[in-house]
Amino acid sequence: MAGYVQDDISSEEQDRQRDLYAPFTAALRGLVDAGIRTEVDDDEIRAVQAEVEALTERLRVRQIAGSYGVRFNQEGRGRAWGNAVVGVRNAVAPPLVIEHEGETGRVWSDFHLGAAYEGPPTLVHGGVSALILDQMLGEAAGAGKRPGMTGTLTLVYRQGTPLGPLRAEAWIDRVDGIKTWAKGRILGPDGVTVEAEGVFILPKWARPAFAEQESATQPTPPFFE
Amino acid sequence: MAGYVQDDISSEEQDRQRDLYAPFTAALRGLVDAGIRTEVDDDEIRAVQAEVEALTERLRVRQIAGSYGVRFNQEGRGRAWGNAVVGVRNAVAPPLVIEHEGETGRVWSDFHLGAAYEGPPTLVHGGVSALILDQMLGEAAGAGKRPGMTGTLTLVYRQGTPLGPLRAEAWIDRVDGIKTWAKGRILGPDGVTVEAEGVFILPKWARPAFAEQESATQPTPPFFE
Repeated sequence: MAGYVQDDISSEEQDRQRDLYAPFTAALRGLVDAGIRTEVDDDEIRAVQAEVEALTERLRVRQIAGSYGVRFNQEGRGRAWGNAVVGVRNAVAPPLVIEHEGETGRVWSDFHLGAAYEGPPTLVHGGVSALILDQMLGEAAGAGKRPGMTGTLTLVYRQGTPLGPLRAEAWIDRVDGIKTWAKGRILGPDGVTVEAEGVFILPKWARPAFAEQESATQPTPPFFE
Repeated sequence: MAGYVQDDISSEEQDRQRDLYAPFTAALRGLVDAGIRTEVDDDEIRAVQAEVEALTERLRVRQIAGSYGVRFNQEGRGRAWGNAVVGVRNAVAPPLVIEHEGETGRVWSDFHLGAAYEGPPTLVHGGVSALILDQMLGEAAGAGKRPGMTGTLTLVYRQGTPLGPLRAEAWIDRVDGIKTWAKGRILGPDGVTVEAEGVFILPKWARPAFAEQESATQPTPPFFE
């Protein structure tokens, strides 16, 4: 399947790379935030722009041809580091760190959304809540050994979600063959703000591997980090 | 309402600021993309990180206290420049430029999504499609003089949405008092990839102003750009 890459790095090297890229990408997120909020004068904006363009050129001296995809190391650990919600190397991602309760399919995340995720003034963009819940529900399905692509997703907005510290939770509601129904929600300081339900469908190309795994005794490898 | 700011800049000055910030934020988007895709060595990553942090400090010398909100100029034109989908000053936003067919509520946008919007390898994150469609449906409601906060949003995923050039469309399906039902979709090279339907609800604080406007003869001011 296009974009899934198997490479030969060890888990030790993978951890080392994470320690390199996490603070680098955090710095980029800081710059994005400052770019929205700055009130420095026009000449300074132009000067910083020129320096940003020069830094981009330095990074592009050597780069992969397309998007990051998902890379698996020699021990089968996956890196979805370009992912728009959890990607350690993606400054568009908050990024969410999603915790798993064993293999029950119950997942949760405590995170913070700043100025870059705004919709209505002072509130999280309704679509950003949808973005986060899509990832959370998909992770719940995957954590319950039922990974899949989003088939449908329904969101009910109970109240505005304020920018700031938030929590998201998701769990598997039921499973039927290649389909997994997951539910989840976002909680703010005043309780539940958004509720979600979705169906996740195991892609065709992955079905043979999962049929095999179903009949195996060993646990599912931890695919993504 | 918190975060809505009235300032005294002219439309000419607003256009001038847009011409300053649009290329600045485009440069930040380039840096975010390069940050995901770069393969330069570790020392260079650390060196670029230090320079990014220094640029952030320069921008933070003078900045607004919170998020951007929505600012209206002396002629009533709005700037949602921090918005996560259309924000001219927000590097998290692609940004979408949304075209309006008069006041019919029909809107569309041609845009490009790169590596920063990835979910499954080579494909747009399902939640990013939701993010974009939430904005599009909300704009349709607003374009039909029925602005509102998202009440519910339902997405049906027909096929994977490839990263690259895409189109989104949205329109008003029906209106009932303070509620507007809008529909929309994303189209890729192989046709419709995601369909959406949502209900948008006029917030309580805005209802008196809109009741007044309903009985007026002049057209709705073009609130947002």
